[in-house]
Amino acid sequence: MPKLLLDKEKCLRNIEKMARKAADRELSFRPHCKTHQSIEIAAWFRDFGVKTITVSSFPMAAYFAQADWKDILVAFPFHPGEMENLISLSEQCDLSILVDSPAALPFLNHIPRPVGIYLDIDTGYGRTGIKTENTDLMEQIIVKSKANPRLEFRGFYCHAGHSYKPGSSSERDAIHQKAIRDLASLKERFGIYHPKLLYGDTPNCSMQEAFGELDELTPGNFVFYDLVQWALGACRLDEIAVSMECPVAGRYPAGDRILVHGGVVHFSKESMVLNGRSIFGLLVQQTGSGWKEHSGEICLASLSQEHGMVEPCGDLIDRVHIGEKLLFLPVHSCLTAHLMRGYLTLDKQTITTLNS
Amino acid sequence: MPKLLLDKEKCLRNIEKMARKAADRELSFRPHCKTHQSIEIAAWFRDFGVKTITVSSFPMAAYFAQADWKDILVAFPFHPGEMENLISLSEQCDLSILVDSPAALPFLNHIPRPVGIYLDIDTGYGRTGIKTENTDLMEQIIVKSKANPRLEFRGFYCHAGHSYKPGSSSERDAIHQKAIRDLASLKERFGIYHPKLLYGDTPNCSMQEAFGELDELTPGNFVFYDLVQWALGACRLDEIAVSMECPVAGRYPAGDRILVHGGVVHFSKESMVLNGRSIFGLLVQQTGSGWKEHSGEICLASLSQEHGMVEPCGDLIDRVHIGEKLLFLPVHSCLTAHLMRGYLTLDKQTITTLNS
Repeated sequence: MPKLLLDKEKCLRNIEKMARKAADRELSFRPHCKTHQSIEIAAWFRDFGVKTITVSSFPMAAYFAQADWKDILVAFPFHPGEMENLISLSEQCDLSILVDSPAALPFLNHIPRPVGIYLDIDTGYGRTGIKTENTDLMEQIIVKSKANPRLEFRGFYCHAGHSYKPGSSSERDAIHQKAIRDLASLKERFGIYHPKLLYGDTPNCSMQEAFGELDELTPGNFVFYDLVQWALGACRLDEIAVSMECPVAGRYPAGDRILVHGGVVHFSKESMVLNGRSIFGLLVQQTGSGWKEHSGEICLASLSQEHGMVEPCGDLIDRVHIGEKLLFLPVHSCLTAHLMRGYLTLDKQTITTLNS
Repeated sequence: MPKLLLDKEKCLRNIEKMARKAADRELSFRPHCKTHQSIEIAAWFRDFGVKTITVSSFPMAAYFAQADWKDILVAFPFHPGEMENLISLSEQCDLSILVDSPAALPFLNHIPRPVGIYLDIDTGYGRTGIKTENTDLMEQIIVKSKANPRLEFRGFYCHAGHSYKPGSSSERDAIHQKAIRDLASLKERFGIYHPKLLYGDTPNCSMQEAFGELDELTPGNFVFYDLVQWALGACRLDEIAVSMECPVAGRYPAGDRILVHGGVVHFSKESMVLNGRSIFGLLVQQTGSGWKEHSGEICLASLSQEHGMVEPCGDLIDRVHIGEKLLFLPVHSCLTAHLMRGYLTLDKQTITTLNS
């Protein structure tokens, strides 16, 4: 079976770098745990002073709360289907949720314990959240929340996910500049409530240096990085901390193809374009102490449920044998990690996750 | 949280229809279990006389073997990383594996119990397998396998996966005709070994009527079907037996968008093009007894890890409220079922899977 290898040293360096970046700017650091989904990996963050985390779902929050995380933000707009989970979690930790509509508030009328709320702000991504200019709606939600003594309005949250869209570095800078300008304007506009500004997608947190009036960074993917982040310029190839070890199961020299055991149920169906080719993973070379860049640009060109096809193979096809293992960097490490539900460190330690 | 609803009646009808199709043609039926991955659902097949199954991995084979399935084909080219699993399984059931290279055979030299082998044949899909014309290689593998008293050559297996490629019905017919012609030629060429012919992708098994010299059908997806199969013409929309129940978590009338809780970790990242739009799911209308076609063509237009964006929404946006549930048919039910790791039937029974 394929195994998701984790280079702990690279991972720790990624954590340290981001923690230091935040600390140097006197920003709090509330890393998103949806990428690694592991209490063991979350524990590594504690050594860098991290006490607050972000998650993407209530079950994920419950998993981390059981591991003694005491300050958790569920960064997904709250809906009443999660009420039972919310009540249970609010008894275990300092819980915050996202809200972007007054319609969510009545469901929270009878919660037994305090819950923090952040307004989800859309500075141009166009997914969820309230558009920056819609301050009337924000005011309405804040005032309405104040009528509930157990709701504590804490600030504004922004995931500027349009930083993932391909573009020039000046376009990316403009996305970031607008976002931090927008958030600063809200901090001023709603100053009487002393709102905090939470922000954080991995590309912006990795590539930008100035964070204006922001208070907390909440990136997640940086813990491992991946090929998407590398293509954006958010990391170096040798900073990607996970790779998939796939057994070779077939050689097809006439078709210039190799079959590896490693398919959609391992990598996910996320693809990206690299030098004009759609790919699902990039071959790296195994070394005594992990892996390093491979000289040829050899990729996973297609995936089925369990099959991964390496195509074209270059000189690899003449050297590889059935049963050998090849290592591939994933396109999107969050999805790959979610599917693999566990890691194997380079010194053969198994690391479990929420879904192990 | 999103839930994967299963309409058991539709599912049973799908099973019955395929079982009858095979029986009417005096073909054996060895359904692929990689779609449902559930011993409870596999048990439903027993009522239609099914005693043999196909799976896509050794852990999946072990899961079904524990539920007393006694004749299992692992339809993935064997590689020695699975040796331990193979030995253990060969003690529990009549195990068959796929082989497409003589290089795989030496690893099987010292197996303690008999194992059947099928040669994986490529009639034009271009993924794995031996090309039909390469009978010398087949002969070589068969002869080599005969030298091992524990290996039993059983026949030829073909997954004509190019039936999934968009094309006219005459192009699809040509793919099928070539495949059954190719397989028949191998049956004749290697007649002294009395090979069986195994065949089966869901589009061909659903849409074709004549199966020539074939002996067994091995489709999997038909148990649920999905939007891809519907677009190919392999099923009607009302034959799709699973739908995802997603809570509404946000309304964005200005952007004509609705947010549902249901993202890549639920649906998978598999998309398809429907009337020029790339979609990840199609809205259906909940009824007292399940769901039915929705009059508007309302789709999941984009997914993030937990987010699903319905866009554009038509008149739905005026009617829907936070907390309500919307139902979507999945693009690729195998991947969706793999991610969800369980089903909820319409009468609220929970059905577990390999990964529950």
